[in-house]
Amino acid sequence: MKNVYIIGVDSLKFGKYKEHDHRELVKETFDNCLVDAGITANDIQSVHFANSLWGYYNRQDGIRGHIAMRHCGLEKVPITNLEAACASGTLALHSAWKDILTGLFDCSLAVGVDKLYMDDKHKMFDAFYFAVDIANKEEVFQEWNEAVKNVNVPIPEYNQGARSPFMDIYANIALSHMNQYGTTQEQLAMVAAKNHHNGSLNPKAQFQFDMSTEQVLEDRIVSYPLTRSMCAPMGDGAACAILCSEEFLEKLPDSVKERAVKIASSVYMSGRNRTLKERSTCAEAAELAYRMAGKIPEDIDVAEVHDASAIGEIIHYENLGFCPVGEGGKFMESGATQLHGKIPVNPSGGLISRGHPIAASGLGQIYELVTQLRGEAGVRQVNGAKVALAENGGGNVGLEEAAFTVTILER
Amino acid sequence: MKNVYIIGVDSLKFGKYKEHDHRELVKETFDNCLVDAGITANDIQSVHFANSLWGYYNRQDGIRGHIAMRHCGLEKVPITNLEAACASGTLALHSAWKDILTGLFDCSLAVGVDKLYMDDKHKMFDAFYFAVDIANKEEVFQEWNEAVKNVNVPIPEYNQGARSPFMDIYANIALSHMNQYGTTQEQLAMVAAKNHHNGSLNPKAQFQFDMSTEQVLEDRIVSYPLTRSMCAPMGDGAACAILCSEEFLEKLPDSVKERAVKIASSVYMSGRNRTLKERSTCAEAAELAYRMAGKIPEDIDVAEVHDASAIGEIIHYENLGFCPVGEGGKFMESGATQLHGKIPVNPSGGLISRGHPIAASGLGQIYELVTQLRGEAGVRQVNGAKVALAENGGGNVGLEEAAFTVTILER
Repeated sequence: MKNVYIIGVDSLKFGKYKEHDHRELVKETFDNCLVDAGITANDIQSVHFANSLWGYYNRQDGIRGHIAMRHCGLEKVPITNLEAACASGTLALHSAWKDILTGLFDCSLAVGVDKLYMDDKHKMFDAFYFAVDIANKEEVFQEWNEAVKNVNVPIPEYNQGARSPFMDIYANIALSHMNQYGTTQEQLAMVAAKNHHNGSLNPKAQFQFDMSTEQVLEDRIVSYPLTRSMCAPMGDGAACAILCSEEFLEKLPDSVKERAVKIASSVYMSGRNRTLKERSTCAEAAELAYRMAGKIPEDIDVAEVHDASAIGEIIHYENLGFCPVGEGGKFMESGATQLHGKIPVNPSGGLISRGHPIAASGLGQIYELVTQLRGEAGVRQVNGAKVALAENGGGNVGLEEAAFTVTILER
Repeated sequence: MKNVYIIGVDSLKFGKYKEHDHRELVKETFDNCLVDAGITANDIQSVHFANSLWGYYNRQDGIRGHIAMRHCGLEKVPITNLEAACASGTLALHSAWKDILTGLFDCSLAVGVDKLYMDDKHKMFDAFYFAVDIANKEEVFQEWNEAVKNVNVPIPEYNQGARSPFMDIYANIALSHMNQYGTTQEQLAMVAAKNHHNGSLNPKAQFQFDMSTEQVLEDRIVSYPLTRSMCAPMGDGAACAILCSEEFLEKLPDSVKERAVKIASSVYMSGRNRTLKERSTCAEAAELAYRMAGKIPEDIDVAEVHDASAIGEIIHYENLGFCPVGEGGKFMESGATQLHGKIPVNPSGGLISRGHPIAASGLGQIYELVTQLRGEAGVRQVNGAKVALAENGGGNVGLEEAAFTVTILER
């Protein structure tokens, strides 16, 4: 397998960009990324463009990447429009990586953009329906209600509805986990408090304020046991990465070479994950990513994982092999995933605090990890980080999470 | 470069499927394709899923391929959702081809589906707006009105509006071509008559009736000089292809090996094509595809090209090097592209007669060419076809056609 390097990354500060359209956000992050990589737009040989909601909010369903990249002045370059819901950003990275592996391309761009604050006509949480298999929504909730019927933790009545399907699904996963393994709501709050603390140190985070475990617990309930500050916010944003082959890298100045980060492995998988009893597709993707990179979980110095809600992060500790299955809550409580713990997770603040503009999120993770591996993360720098892992998930088909990516980077 | 083979193809008969949803169309074509390839769903290692309008008509914006492929019983396989407007189908083929080139995958599926007759609430032609850069629509028509200001053929007043942007744009291209090269409306009608004749021989075609040049000319005007029967119809459909590596092919029975078709080259390009004076991106894509395949235009025995309107086919004769620039109209008139001419073009009936369910169209071309190369095309068989070319275009950004693919197949 050919060596592939990331030579440039950028992420906008995620948040509200009511005055800027998708094209403007893409142009800003793309221009920054070219400067970071020390190359020009003419060096880009292919583009992998991730977006989920431009069609939903603005009816720009078709050839979105072509429209955005034309605004960036990029011409005569193949542009592939890609979508995998919340995992779209790292699917773009994965596709750009595969382009280099084919030997047909030496320098490829992965870019992701989404705007959730675009249009006051739409309620924000409407958007969360977009990735749920519309025809099967009833079935999803029936199955979940069945699944949590015998759990021994109290389920308030308002959890039975389907107001915000994603957070209801996450809440039900949390209830199952609490029931099966003794995970506590306080442990969930610790995840959120950690990620809010990390976000407070990250100038690119949407939320840059600290929260204590108590404050998280006292916040209003979205879907029990999840409080608002345990859930990723809505946001706008764009992020990108420039990838190249070894041959391309060798021709670049030392200043670029020294900051390059190698993609040790990249895995994209789709599959089902109906109950906590089945092995998650995410765990399978991670296993393959470790094998491909010749690494084990103990080798990972820093990770960004898909904490769309706090229970997501806990389950991903287990999926990624950072701790045994069922012990994610205790692992959080041990302090291992704190910024200066054994394996810092979500130093950026994660989706909970850095923000979650759907198709930009995964590339936001890559931006953070490349920054960490370069030693450029300032006050949130993980000391001596040499190997990093990003896990990004997206969509929901019935009870399946649709798409997972696991990317291992090293320097 | 590794050898990649197409071992299975299928196309539904394009047309109206009001009683069937996207998932059902995909399942039918996928099941047929597995039978054609003599493999099972378990052999498929990756899926490239093309769709343009499921979001537009049904709000199923996210993870469309995951939803459709789950319905087909396919699990634990990476599914990449792709979009390049009318070129989406061959973008899926191109991406599946690249998957095999990486060495990571041995057997990949490309599938495309679209339904344009889905929802009576929407006017069909609304859909044609989807791929036009919405923010620049005014600019597009201003520029075109400027471009055709000095043409010497009569332009009826109703061409100035923007009722059906794609057909207005094609009409303006036709007017420019008529003015610059002396192409006639009758030559355009000959393209449509040829494609209607071919469609009458194709059981998979949406329109299976013959039309004379005179009947085409007498049909009602959509946008002068284009009459209705010179324009691709709206339609529903799905089509797919299964690709594999040489290693995978070698393990299959002789009956499959004998019918396998090699992908000699596959090129996907995006770019501008503002006026007839600039060299088309399509011509550049073709040049690269010929070079990659070690072929010249004279080697092509049969071609499917993107005749979204009759002028499209004439211009693509030129782009693909079948005749010199400006001589497309005369080339049609010479009979060279008739079913038993020097280089038969659109033996399937083309988009005009076989139909044009956006993301399925390109794979419909591939289905036709593989069928021709296998010698299984029955009454429309091109004798001795060994090398075939498909050209598929999509989208419109400002005055740029956004995306082109050129695929060369050989047996």
